[in-house]
Amino acid sequence: MVPAVSWKLFGLAAVAVALGLEAVYLFMRRRRPPPVREVLFFPTPLICTEQVLRPGTCCSCPLPHHTDSALSQLIRRLLGARRSLELCIFTFSSSPLAQAVLLLHGRGVRVRVITDSDYMAASGSQIGALRKAGVVVRHNQSSGFMHHKFAVLDKSIVITGSMNWTMQAVQTNKENLLITDDGVCVRAYMEEFERLWVEFDPAGYCFFPEEEKKGL
Amino acid sequence: MVPAVSWKLFGLAAVAVALGLEAVYLFMRRRRPPPVREVLFFPTPLICTEQVLRPGTCCSCPLPHHTDSALSQLIRRLLGARRSLELCIFTFSSSPLAQAVLLLHGRGVRVRVITDSDYMAASGSQIGALRKAGVVVRHNQSSGFMHHKFAVLDKSIVITGSMNWTMQAVQTNKENLLITDDGVCVRAYMEEFERLWVEFDPAGYCFFPEEEKKGL
Repeated sequence: MVPAVSWKLFGLAAVAVALGLEAVYLFMRRRRPPPVREVLFFPTPLICTEQVLRPGTCCSCPLPHHTDSALSQLIRRLLGARRSLELCIFTFSSSPLAQAVLLLHGRGVRVRVITDSDYMAASGSQIGALRKAGVVVRHNQSSGFMHHKFAVLDKSIVITGSMNWTMQAVQTNKENLLITDDGVCVRAYMEEFERLWVEFDPAGYCFFPEEEKKGL
Repeated sequence: MVPAVSWKLFGLAAVAVALGLEAVYLFMRRRRPPPVREVLFFPTPLICTEQVLRPGTCCSCPLPHHTDSALSQLIRRLLGARRSLELCIFTFSSSPLAQAVLLLHGRGVRVRVITDSDYMAASGSQIGALRKAGVVVRHNQSSGFMHHKFAVLDKSIVITGSMNWTMQAVQTNKENLLITDDGVCVRAYMEEFERLWVEFDPAGYCFFPEEEKKGL
C-alpha cells in the first residue's frame, strides 16, 4: 500500500510539472519574435524620404514630410539590414532606394547586386552610381531578361513581387511586394542568388561566342 | 485531513489531464496539413503540358513528355482550385496557362481576371480567348501600368512574383514565383484584388475625361 503522503506529493508534483511545462512553453513562444509577414502595395503618394534615410536631419523640400508611405516602409526595412543585402533587380532607377543601398554599403553591410544587362546603363539607372561607390554588380549575358525583382536581407528576410525599383513603379503603377522571413522561402531565394552570382561571374564572360566555337 | 484515496485520485487525474491535453495537441498538429511554402524559378525547359492539363490523354507532339518543370508545377497548382481564381496579371500570352484558366472556368470555378489595358490586345495575348469563353476581365484606365502578377486560389493560396504569364517569361527569362497559404498574405492580396475590381468596374469608365470635366 502506497502511503497517503506519497500520493499527495505525486499529485502535487504532477500538477507542478504540467503547469511548469506550460509556463516554459508560453515563455518561449512570447520570447520568439513574431514572424515577418508583410505586403506592400504601390503606387504610393510622393513624400520626402529624407527623414527615413537620415533620421534627425532637417529637410525643406516641398514634398510632404512626417507622413508614411509604402516606399518609406520599404526603405526602413532595407535599412534594418546589419550584415548583408543580396539584390536581384531588373531595372533600378529609384534615387531614394539607391540612397538606401549606398547607406548600407557605407555602413559596411555586404551588398551584392545582380541586374539586367539591357537596362543597367539606361537613362536614369542607378547601377552606375552603385558601381562608382564600390558596390559589386553582376549581370546576365543571355538573350532573356534577368527579370527578378527580389532582395534578401541578412539571409533571413526576402522581399519579392512585381515591383522594379523605379520611380514609375513606386509612384504610378499597381505593384506589390511580399516580405517574409519564412525559412523555406529565404533559402530558395538565397540559393537562386548564389546560383546566378556564379553564372554571371565576369571570369566566365564570353564576348565572342561564335568565334570561340570556331577555335579563333 | 484529506483522505489518501482523494489525493490518489487527484494525482492520477492530474497526470491523465496533462497527458490527454498533450495527446490532443499532437493529434491536432498532425491532422493540420503542412503549410504551403513553395518557390518556383524560371526559365524552365520546354516540355509537353498536355498530360498535366488533361491527365490520361495521349499526345504525340515532339516536345519531351513525362518530365516535370516549373511550368507544369504551376499548372498543377492552378488546377487545384475548386471554388475561385482571382488573377491580376500584367501580360498574359502563355497558351498552356490560358488553357489551365479555361479548364477551371469550364469546371465552374469562379474566375475573375484583372489586366493591363495597354497589353491586353497585344499580339499573342490570351485575354481575348478568355473573354470569348465568358471569363470576366477588367482592366485599368489610368496612365500607370497594372503591373501586378499575382493569383489567389480558393481565397487561400497566393502566387506572386516577377513572372508575367508569357512564353518568354516561362522559357527565357530569369523569373520567380512565391506560393504561400499564409493568412496575412492571402488576405492582403484578396483585399487588393477586390479594391481593384471595384476601381476598374466598367460602370465607372470615363471615356472623355476632359470633356466630362467641362460638363460636356
